[in-house]
Amino acid sequence: MANVSVIGAGSWGTALALLLHNNGHQVTIWSIVESEVKMLDEEREHKDKLPGVRLPMEMKITGNLEEAIEGKDLMVLAVPSTFTRSTARLMAPYVKEGQIIVNVAKGIEEKTLFTLSDIIEEEIPQADVAVLSGPSHAEEVGRGIPTTCVVGARTQRVAEYIQNTFMNEAFRVYTSPDILGIELGGALKNVIALAAGIADGLGYGDNTKAALITRGMAEISRLGIAMGGKRETFYGLSGMGDLIVTCASMHSRNRRAGILIGKGYSMEEAMKEVKMVVEGVFSAKAAMGLSKKYDIQLPIIEQVNKVLFEGKPADEAVKELMLRDKKIEHSDIPWE
Amino acid sequence: MANVSVIGAGSWGTALALLLHNNGHQVTIWSIVESEVKMLDEEREHKDKLPGVRLPMEMKITGNLEEAIEGKDLMVLAVPSTFTRSTARLMAPYVKEGQIIVNVAKGIEEKTLFTLSDIIEEEIPQADVAVLSGPSHAEEVGRGIPTTCVVGARTQRVAEYIQNTFMNEAFRVYTSPDILGIELGGALKNVIALAAGIADGLGYGDNTKAALITRGMAEISRLGIAMGGKRETFYGLSGMGDLIVTCASMHSRNRRAGILIGKGYSMEEAMKEVKMVVEGVFSAKAAMGLSKKYDIQLPIIEQVNKVLFEGKPADEAVKELMLRDKKIEHSDIPWE
Repeated sequence: MANVSVIGAGSWGTALALLLHNNGHQVTIWSIVESEVKMLDEEREHKDKLPGVRLPMEMKITGNLEEAIEGKDLMVLAVPSTFTRSTARLMAPYVKEGQIIVNVAKGIEEKTLFTLSDIIEEEIPQADVAVLSGPSHAEEVGRGIPTTCVVGARTQRVAEYIQNTFMNEAFRVYTSPDILGIELGGALKNVIALAAGIADGLGYGDNTKAALITRGMAEISRLGIAMGGKRETFYGLSGMGDLIVTCASMHSRNRRAGILIGKGYSMEEAMKEVKMVVEGVFSAKAAMGLSKKYDIQLPIIEQVNKVLFEGKPADEAVKELMLRDKKIEHSDIPWE
Repeated sequence: MANVSVIGAGSWGTALALLLHNNGHQVTIWSIVESEVKMLDEEREHKDKLPGVRLPMEMKITGNLEEAIEGKDLMVLAVPSTFTRSTARLMAPYVKEGQIIVNVAKGIEEKTLFTLSDIIEEEIPQADVAVLSGPSHAEEVGRGIPTTCVVGARTQRVAEYIQNTFMNEAFRVYTSPDILGIELGGALKNVIALAAGIADGLGYGDNTKAALITRGMAEISRLGIAMGGKRETFYGLSGMGDLIVTCASMHSRNRRAGILIGKGYSMEEAMKEVKMVVEGVFSAKAAMGLSKKYDIQLPIIEQVNKVLFEGKPADEAVKELMLRDKKIEHSDIPWE
């Protein structure tokens, strides 16, 4: 049994807290929002973010960060990517040398082009930072639906420790040394999910969406490999797997925002309507920065940026993608 | 303008015939079924297989195979995989040296473990055999929905000729020299689509399905690379792209059959209910033959076979897949 905490009480944090509790661990949830702490402590259900999922009384809910960190074998950092840096900075004074932090959010910081683990390592250099990612809608994990994830860590020992802590009959965890590949795949797939949603919103069918997903995966892996990630990771659970689940499901905020944009909403209107944070919008901009930095062409991600930030009509963007020059599918396979 | 024919008047053949006509080519459709020839010639619509799609009067419909082959620049072979050999044998006497045959069906012959192009080359050695594949539901291509495909041919010249013949604003065609990879991906994805359908039928969610698709793709590429196909092809439009469209859509017979099996139907009952040919059932058996021949483990495909042919309950099969030993995601990426 481990003594663990979950930093952030959104839908994913709450679902993971329950999973860890059900695995027999002692679990503390922390939230920065005082009213959320009070509500969760009293009602034992997050009616907005994960309705119908009960949190047991043994689970501790706190607004005190020191209490959430002190003596913990493992902390799950589950705040939205836009709050990763500020939260890590708040945590830093309390984290002991070698304490494990498992980040479960996805994103790339626009200004620095840092991944989230880069940010955490910069703010809390004494932490042992790992990541957990994969095709795992919180709503389904909360209901015990069979789910797979991959944990990336610096050492095999820590990866296997996290694997043992999370794994159960309905939650299968793989290990990997490729932290960077896991993070890039998770962040960039949100941009492709926006594109797939836009195609849905325009009324295009499954053929169009499958094309966008497949060519989008090629973009993600091209960029990701240039940055040092591994091809296998991009085509694994945290890349392709997560992209598929995101593009197939109405649980995805990125897809839902895309659908609204395809229907003619502006980016601001779509974000307002979806209510929760649409991480793909931030990652789209960051991806263009990476595209320039590493000199890698990202035609789909570029069109998404034009639609989001330059007011380009979505149907024009899709048409442009379909009418690019005739091409060989993979220019590195030779003809005889 | 080319003089082309489509051999086989199923939904995909009919949709491609219309596409080629709209591209300005002279098109002949052949069917072995006399009543189908008569019906199509009179009604100019395939009400069973592609309802709502009108075939223009200029399109020739024939039951005479010699007429469908003689003088044609290109023939599209669009019969179900179980009829590829018998149809190729009928065609052989009329085919001239170097005439192009583009196969668009997907499958592997159970007895010989041949791909469909292997079969055609064996039966019609004088033909120049190519393949066209990708995420392309006939129903959507018939309606002009933006779609992408890849054409595989022995020479770049023939690949580009076929590309030019099919490509238009809504139908983007890539070229590739990897005929084998295109064919294996197209055939094996049907087996994974059955597995994804089974998970849907059992009431599992998007997380489970995404896991099956991702790990299924890993199986397909492991086997396909051992057989000589290229990794890029399996993760391209004809592999991953086609798998995604198949697993997402109710147009797919393989997925629909899987859903019924997940709900407790036997394989025979499911095939009866779906009415059309469920190619994944044949390819599942062939894939096990290939697994033995090339000594490659295919855990998902193996469980699909047990459910289809040995009466194993579907929920047990999924549980077994979820509870296999804890694993590293990609054993070829080293830890530091």
